[in-house]
Amino acid sequence: MRVFIAGIDGYLGWALAQYLVVRGHTIAGNDTFYRRQWVEEMGSCSAIPISDIAQRLAAFREQFGETILFREGDLLDYAFLKSFLQEFQPDAIVHLAEMPSAPYSMMDQAHAVFTQNNNVIGSLNLLWAMKEVCPDAHLVKLGTMGEYGTPNIDIPEGFFEVEFRGRKDKLPFPRQANSFYHWSKVHDSNNTMFACRVWGLRATDIMQGVVFGTRIEEMRNSALLRTRLDFDQCFGTAINRFCCQAVIDHPLTIFGGGGQTRGFLPLRDSMQCLAVTIENPPERSEYRVFNQFEECYTVEELAYIVQTVGNQLGMGISVQHYDNPRKELDEHYYNPDRNHLINLGYTPSHDVKAEIRIMLQDLLHHKDRIAEKRDVLIPDIRWDGSRKRANVIDQTIAHP
Amino acid sequence: MRVFIAGIDGYLGWALAQYLVVRGHTIAGNDTFYRRQWVEEMGSCSAIPISDIAQRLAAFREQFGETILFREGDLLDYAFLKSFLQEFQPDAIVHLAEMPSAPYSMMDQAHAVFTQNNNVIGSLNLLWAMKEVCPDAHLVKLGTMGEYGTPNIDIPEGFFEVEFRGRKDKLPFPRQANSFYHWSKVHDSNNTMFACRVWGLRATDIMQGVVFGTRIEEMRNSALLRTRLDFDQCFGTAINRFCCQAVIDHPLTIFGGGGQTRGFLPLRDSMQCLAVTIENPPERSEYRVFNQFEECYTVEELAYIVQTVGNQLGMGISVQHYDNPRKELDEHYYNPDRNHLINLGYTPSHDVKAEIRIMLQDLLHHKDRIAEKRDVLIPDIRWDGSRKRANVIDQTIAHP
Repeated sequence: MRVFIAGIDGYLGWALAQYLVVRGHTIAGNDTFYRRQWVEEMGSCSAIPISDIAQRLAAFREQFGETILFREGDLLDYAFLKSFLQEFQPDAIVHLAEMPSAPYSMMDQAHAVFTQNNNVIGSLNLLWAMKEVCPDAHLVKLGTMGEYGTPNIDIPEGFFEVEFRGRKDKLPFPRQANSFYHWSKVHDSNNTMFACRVWGLRATDIMQGVVFGTRIEEMRNSALLRTRLDFDQCFGTAINRFCCQAVIDHPLTIFGGGGQTRGFLPLRDSMQCLAVTIENPPERSEYRVFNQFEECYTVEELAYIVQTVGNQLGMGISVQHYDNPRKELDEHYYNPDRNHLINLGYTPSHDVKAEIRIMLQDLLHHKDRIAEKRDVLIPDIRWDGSRKRANVIDQTIAHP
Repeated sequence: MRVFIAGIDGYLGWALAQYLVVRGHTIAGNDTFYRRQWVEEMGSCSAIPISDIAQRLAAFREQFGETILFREGDLLDYAFLKSFLQEFQPDAIVHLAEMPSAPYSMMDQAHAVFTQNNNVIGSLNLLWAMKEVCPDAHLVKLGTMGEYGTPNIDIPEGFFEVEFRGRKDKLPFPRQANSFYHWSKVHDSNNTMFACRVWGLRATDIMQGVVFGTRIEEMRNSALLRTRLDFDQCFGTAINRFCCQAVIDHPLTIFGGGGQTRGFLPLRDSMQCLAVTIENPPERSEYRVFNQFEECYTVEELAYIVQTVGNQLGMGISVQHYDNPRKELDEHYYNPDRNHLINLGYTPSHDVKAEIRIMLQDLLHHKDRIAEKRDVLIPDIRWDGSRKRANVIDQTIAHP
């Protein structure tokens, strides 16, 4: 299939290009390189060194014998987007071109507006361009499990049968996001659902859990094929950040009680899920929602797993609780479905410890880079709009 | 109270300034005059002649002995917005500064993007400015009953108790809007709900029905105090358009079967509801949703009422059914609540015929203006993204 990856230079995009080409797909993609700029703005860098796009594209050609049709450009530039899609005529479009950080969107007015403008208008342009240029293509839209928030009932995949005052209907499941970033993804989901209904587009809206991992098999040992990995307060997500902390003897940082439960999945599972989704497109007019994660964990459980694996590798790892800069529940019910992908053939890897072992071994090679930027590990962006560095509230070994 | 009206030059804004000043409130407001430009872009004009803002402000001062603090400027200009709020220090902010037309937002990519950018980012700026400048003020945010769409169950006011797989929670009621405009209001509702939760702002999100009417008492017979009234396909809503058609002997235009049911309210009821809302603010951190309409009618019923009243005034009025340029259900269940405003003291006027009689009499004075623009009465903006003039599918007298 002809697969267009919007945001092909990012953490998921660069891995996905490799995963898909090995499966026989033809790849094109765009990027603005904003992610590189945002991480620099946070005073940080990728823990895994990454090369520039020209080197990446050359290495890709050499490794896989296939060329990526790449153009630098922005989904907000409608003329660029439309003519690129016209040229490539994709069967599927994977939309990874959004600003993906909750804290970044909560920093101040300018960052909140940037986030919602970039994400909502970029996605809206993509819907229009598909309608005008390739209405038969399949949009694989990356949303987030964070769109749902933490309701006190099970979380179905996008829709639920509801009975209210004696009447029944099947309705979109209510969203209760917790940052302007997460809400931007809800806005996108809504626009996408509407475009399918009104124009007959087809889309899969993926409510993805938090992705972790430093590699997939396809990267082999090529430094040029490796994907980025961030650890700063905005772009470094839980397990990735814990592993970076572990290799520089920094305590693992838990914000609040650590009982916050979320869905997680290794990078290789994310790639598998995206490929399964692309290779099993929905019908025209169909808008389907997939919850995509391997397993749910509390933050505290994850810290314990990283600690256990690190100990086996001879690392002595402590855990620190900080006051939570976010406004979120420490303890809550959390029981999301994830049947749709499994029904299509997704096989969860179910070995988080093996994955974390690989990550720690990979990251040990780059501990100096991480140590140099260790200041970025403690957040100061607070949900009340202020900037104040989180404080240690206690220091414990996570579990006996 | 000190009330800031964003979009004070519009259909509701200009009437509201008068309604509130008579009740003793102090008024400030901004406008971009975009509404005047959009209607001109549609090749139309206000059926009721309106004067420029300088004349309006002078007439207001003369009539009511009070001055409106007015500035021309855009909610998208954050520096402007912030300094204006800083200067005025409002107790309440009524947000009427959004692009309010569904067809306008469905015209093409540029108009869809304009709509969501203007509405979502403008509202997001307003939330940030309130947080930074006047966090205690009460945001009265105009949404629309169209956010809900037409679910097959009752429509509560914003939230509902739901039982799912044996567990219960109170959740936001799912939205199923039917244009990029209506979705922009959903996006706003979501951002507003979040800002109340995370920053402790207070807001009333008004799901307003379709407003009709040519005047409120406060305007007396002053030509300079009259508010605009549109009849083009984008900015002319059902009853207003029917009345304009009636006075120029144009058949009343029903799109599709006419069984589409919506909530409607006269301009004077809209003013009463907004005043009741402003004068009864919610607590800090409270986000409340009011469904605001006087009564629900099918489009066919409304055409019949206009026909009946027109006949009493000696007008011979026919009705034409056209193919529907929108993609919507002709027949559907519709049973929204509207208890919150009634509980606060809103008294529905319950005399739609009297209101329509006044409208027809007012509009008869301006039949030449309307007749000159009669081409704008038939829509050509279709929900499939094409432009094709609606066709007559039959011609009937609405009822025996």
